[in-house]
Amino acid sequence: MKEISLRNIYQQYIDCLNLQDWASLGTFVDDSVVHNGQRFGLSGYKTMLERDFAEIPDLKFAPEFVLESPPFIGCRLMFNCTPKSQFLGLSVNGRHVRFSENVFYHFRDARIVEVWSVIDKQAIEAQLRD
Amino acid sequence: MKEISLRNIYQQYIDCLNLQDWASLGTFVDDSVVHNGQRFGLSGYKTMLERDFAEIPDLKFAPEFVLESPPFIGCRLMFNCTPKSQFLGLSVNGRHVRFSENVFYHFRDARIVEVWSVIDKQAIEAQLRD
Repeated sequence: MKEISLRNIYQQYIDCLNLQDWASLGTFVDDSVVHNGQRFGLSGYKTMLERDFAEIPDLKFAPEFVLESPPFIGCRLMFNCTPKSQFLGLSVNGRHVRFSENVFYHFRDARIVEVWSVIDKQAIEAQLRD
Repeated sequence: MKEISLRNIYQQYIDCLNLQDWASLGTFVDDSVVHNGQRFGLSGYKTMLERDFAEIPDLKFAPEFVLESPPFIGCRLMFNCTPKSQFLGLSVNGRHVRFSENVFYHFRDARIVEVWSVIDKQAIEAQLRD
């Protein structure tokens, strides 16, 4: 049986997010997942994503490029979206913004066990000043 | 002859930064390097780094982990330092701060040709609120 690459699993995870298919999230995310040092667990991770989509109805995860270095994945995500009101403490209030997220994932048994994510807040601030 | 891995070259690049060995920077950084979409070139890149060390005298680049996925390197950098006054538009004013940078590098012929860097500004803001 051909082993499925982490890159392929990661693309399926991204598809799962964009479909908001929360019933399948546990296929890709471990029960005890840690996000930026906080032990969210699967339910806390799901809560974070649901909140993201509630605050940004047109949210779409779009990888610009993916690095595969098992057991790690690195990804440059691009967002092109319209947060309804506050986002990262900024009053975006329905303005269209474009920003990136540089993110690393540690996989174990084909599931994400830890995430290190940094969102380019400075890029959003610059667009709000325009 | 054994090929030197990108990971090894990257570690030498980090050592070069920490030594502020600007005469050697061109060994690791291409003449026409692009940083976050801006064509800095080697001299502009050097200027950025010199300014960083001027603003943060105890600056030290410390990789937490490195992903090697040729021709890309991904790195989670940790900083534990004391910006003298302003940093990323924040009035740090000699406070000690701890923050990360998630960064990707594209190499060509063993030199960095493009960098995508995101610094965790939110982490610094949180520490300044404490």
